[in-house]
Amino acid sequence: MKIALAQLNYHIANFEDNSKKIIDSIQKAKKGKADLVVFSELSVTGYYPNDLLEREEFVEKAEKTIHEIAAHCTGIAALVGGPSINDGQKGKQLHNSAWFLKEGKVSAIRHKTLLPTYDIFDEYRHFEPNNEFKLIEYKGEKLAVTICEDIWDEQPAATKFAKEKLYSVSPLEELNKLNPDIIINLSASPFSYNQENKRKDILAKNAKRYHLPIVYVNQTGANTELIFDGGSCFINAKGEISTELSYFKEDFQIINTKMPPVIKQPKTEVIGKIHKALILGIRDYFFKSNLHDAVLGLSGGIDSALVCALAVEALGAKHVRGILMPSVYSSDHSISDAVQLANNLNIKYDILKIQPMVDEFGKQLHPLFRGLVPGVAEENIQARTRGVLVMAVSNKFGSILLNTTNKSECAVGYGTLYGDMNGGLAVIADLYKTDVYKLSNYINREKEIIPQNSITKAPSAELRPDQKDTDSLPDYDTLDAILFKYIEQNQSPKEIIEAGFEEKTVTKISRMVNRNEYKRFQAAPILRISSKAFGFGRKMPIVARFS
Amino acid sequence: MKIALAQLNYHIANFEDNSKKIIDSIQKAKKGKADLVVFSELSVTGYYPNDLLEREEFVEKAEKTIHEIAAHCTGIAALVGGPSINDGQKGKQLHNSAWFLKEGKVSAIRHKTLLPTYDIFDEYRHFEPNNEFKLIEYKGEKLAVTICEDIWDEQPAATKFAKEKLYSVSPLEELNKLNPDIIINLSASPFSYNQENKRKDILAKNAKRYHLPIVYVNQTGANTELIFDGGSCFINAKGEISTELSYFKEDFQIINTKMPPVIKQPKTEVIGKIHKALILGIRDYFFKSNLHDAVLGLSGGIDSALVCALAVEALGAKHVRGILMPSVYSSDHSISDAVQLANNLNIKYDILKIQPMVDEFGKQLHPLFRGLVPGVAEENIQARTRGVLVMAVSNKFGSILLNTTNKSECAVGYGTLYGDMNGGLAVIADLYKTDVYKLSNYINREKEIIPQNSITKAPSAELRPDQKDTDSLPDYDTLDAILFKYIEQNQSPKEIIEAGFEEKTVTKISRMVNRNEYKRFQAAPILRISSKAFGFGRKMPIVARFS
Repeated sequence: MKIALAQLNYHIANFEDNSKKIIDSIQKAKKGKADLVVFSELSVTGYYPNDLLEREEFVEKAEKTIHEIAAHCTGIAALVGGPSINDGQKGKQLHNSAWFLKEGKVSAIRHKTLLPTYDIFDEYRHFEPNNEFKLIEYKGEKLAVTICEDIWDEQPAATKFAKEKLYSVSPLEELNKLNPDIIINLSASPFSYNQENKRKDILAKNAKRYHLPIVYVNQTGANTELIFDGGSCFINAKGEISTELSYFKEDFQIINTKMPPVIKQPKTEVIGKIHKALILGIRDYFFKSNLHDAVLGLSGGIDSALVCALAVEALGAKHVRGILMPSVYSSDHSISDAVQLANNLNIKYDILKIQPMVDEFGKQLHPLFRGLVPGVAEENIQARTRGVLVMAVSNKFGSILLNTTNKSECAVGYGTLYGDMNGGLAVIADLYKTDVYKLSNYINREKEIIPQNSITKAPSAELRPDQKDTDSLPDYDTLDAILFKYIEQNQSPKEIIEAGFEEKTVTKISRMVNRNEYKRFQAAPILRISSKAFGFGRKMPIVARFS
Repeated sequence: MKIALAQLNYHIANFEDNSKKIIDSIQKAKKGKADLVVFSELSVTGYYPNDLLEREEFVEKAEKTIHEIAAHCTGIAALVGGPSINDGQKGKQLHNSAWFLKEGKVSAIRHKTLLPTYDIFDEYRHFEPNNEFKLIEYKGEKLAVTICEDIWDEQPAATKFAKEKLYSVSPLEELNKLNPDIIINLSASPFSYNQENKRKDILAKNAKRYHLPIVYVNQTGANTELIFDGGSCFINAKGEISTELSYFKEDFQIINTKMPPVIKQPKTEVIGKIHKALILGIRDYFFKSNLHDAVLGLSGGIDSALVCALAVEALGAKHVRGILMPSVYSSDHSISDAVQLANNLNIKYDILKIQPMVDEFGKQLHPLFRGLVPGVAEENIQARTRGVLVMAVSNKFGSILLNTTNKSECAVGYGTLYGDMNGGLAVIADLYKTDVYKLSNYINREKEIIPQNSITKAPSAELRPDQKDTDSLPDYDTLDAILFKYIEQNQSPKEIIEAGFEEKTVTKISRMVNRNEYKRFQAAPILRISSKAFGFGRKMPIVARFS
């Protein structure tokens, strides 16, 4: 059978654009004499529409769009992802379905069985799981149609605390009893830097276990926090990937399942993947919001320099504007490094003073603050004055403020709410500071874009004289190692101490993480590149006493 | 049998305090010669601990605490809510359980069957559902132990789009086959202003259907957004409530199931319930965070006046500080109304000017803004300057800034991010403006606390000359009616227009709601009093094109 793999970038709720893309791919597949074209999970709506799925008019529009697409399926069949109404008497009102379209109409529907409800996933909220297993017969072959998690019944446990088998049913085991010829999987599998390997392992394992080839179609593109890397593929019954589609962009391939073309994508190192992911994340956040211009504060430090370089790659130098806002505590190099960055990137920049406003704030607050020692309140006034300035530029020119917080700061609450925590999108808040260095060096791999001095100087918030991050935090190698164990690996402070870290430091850091949930609650959406990002994939109570 | 109903206020993850309260109630029940004392759902951990449930040390501590509590159960039995480890080979690692303690140890465990995953509920994320039905035999009686949602298998559909039966199993139907003598339900049922009636209907319906009495124990207190109203009760087999515990506070009653005492709580009108709920919500947010002082901006308008009055009731006049920050566009009454409010409430207030900072911001930005017409950017500078001032006071004195946004504003995005959207807790952001009026009049029911002029004058943000809310919005009666249909009832714009509202207005308002998800994403946590509050009970994608 000739099957087309259509790896597309969908926009949530944008039925017009999504269906146009899908129909274009159907035409292309027809021209290529394909028998079947496969799209990804919830392709009609984009992944994940969340509570829009509770709106009747949304679901009606999705269904109408699928029927319009079906009209184009003459001389070819298509598998399109979309919600479908649960016609049973009980349960959630929808299924997460694969619609099988042929001869101009809907020919069959198969529903997702395993609904992930962990980390960023929340599918039980909207969908009723499938509990009936049937193949689809087409042109003499029997297709086992599955949706994303359906092939992940046996996945590596997220923490050692979790069970190996998260689900009590194995859809592939059930479908295999019916003697299928091929497994087809419609996916929406978000990127994290170790996801590609996990995914390839699962695919190979399943192909080998059931001695069946697998057609795997993932989407690409980003929807707010979630970035989809694509990497759709065909795996033969021996578990070998013979055809692999591109990463981080749309792609289309027609394969003959008996003689699939050999296409391998070049291996990319982890930091290179993160680089591509973030650029796609920025680009889609802007373009899907119909906005084109970014503004950000440039401190001369490495975080803002990195975000600026990424933004220029994503949006173009003409569309990025830097604002330099030195204070009395800023060192000379704060300006010179930022100016050099702006020149290296060829972007427009402005220098604005904050001291006149900071002084006026101080004057107004003097009667209230008289006799009290200056401290965090005064430091925050500086950060917030900068926040007001960049937001004014953002409002005036319709540009989005990019937030430059990194994951280490975000974890320990080292940032000012309504100050440097401002922004429409937090670009690197899922990168630990040590990874910020790695990515900055990667960006400089051919020539110096980020000034070397921004990379080598000691990190500082510059909110008081001679302040250094290490005044209140351990060095970043130690901090990030502790944070990774605490956040990504969910280890207890006790375990981390047993692994060789100082008790005092571990206790302090874990408390800082817990105590700052209230700040993260109001943080900008964060581009997700790890297996555990702050945001809706990590839900922690604010008013809790956990230590 | 003599059963004690222990209705307590728990603090998430505060095992020490929670277990102390539980043990105290066990002692009290023993003194009252009760056979059994019943606590609420997840009483040991507090509801809802969310991803703390993914931390092994958290679950271990919960289990250890339950065993410590069990040691006190001599001569009495107790039903305590807490997580338990799923000892099966597959599935989520935990159950949401009722622990039956007697003779100094754990005697039985029963798990929750129906795990809600809608609105604010997310229990499938952490728990494996029960699928085995057994009674607990104790002192010659057979107890059907259920947890919260277990008795809600047939609930009024949230929207007409939803099915009547959300679940395919009915735990009560299953348990009833085993001939129980009584139903016991451990609950954590959050308040919304129509919840009490729904709850009493469900309880009566089940008691009558199965001809069984029900002991229903809910918790009280607030955990960030969620407010629990208590109202634990005993319902006889005819579906009549004979014993009803207090609302919005801890309570304890021992009943003889054959001859339960007749205690009825006075009927409270809806606005009175909302009033109590918000005060409890404020108080617990502060006290459970170990903080005592609040600060807020007083504009002279009704929203900040209402929040201020509520804060004084919750925290005491000494613990509330008002900051008046008039601008050149403020009317004279802005100051005089705010001063009168502060005097009525006997709180401390300060008047701070914003113009000097606003002027300095304008000066610094002049080279960038030259030749451009003043607009939203300049209006926002005023709101953000106020935001910096109140946050400085908050930081300096360790007080929490109360946010004064109402639900109508929050819905249409009529507020400035990092300006008047600032705050640690949004007190009235689940109250439509029309309800803000109702609650203000209620607060004034005995004497004028909120100045009458704040209630009667036309609402205005006062960010430009002679600005009125109605410049850009329909009158609040119309706006709120449309918003209620769109948000609470999930009606489509088409349906709302068919109900008699102007097409142009409905289209404009629904677009404003959809377009402002990005602002609400960064909003403060909102005290929930309705069936559909903004926040984690309403999950909408940011980068979507839905209209």
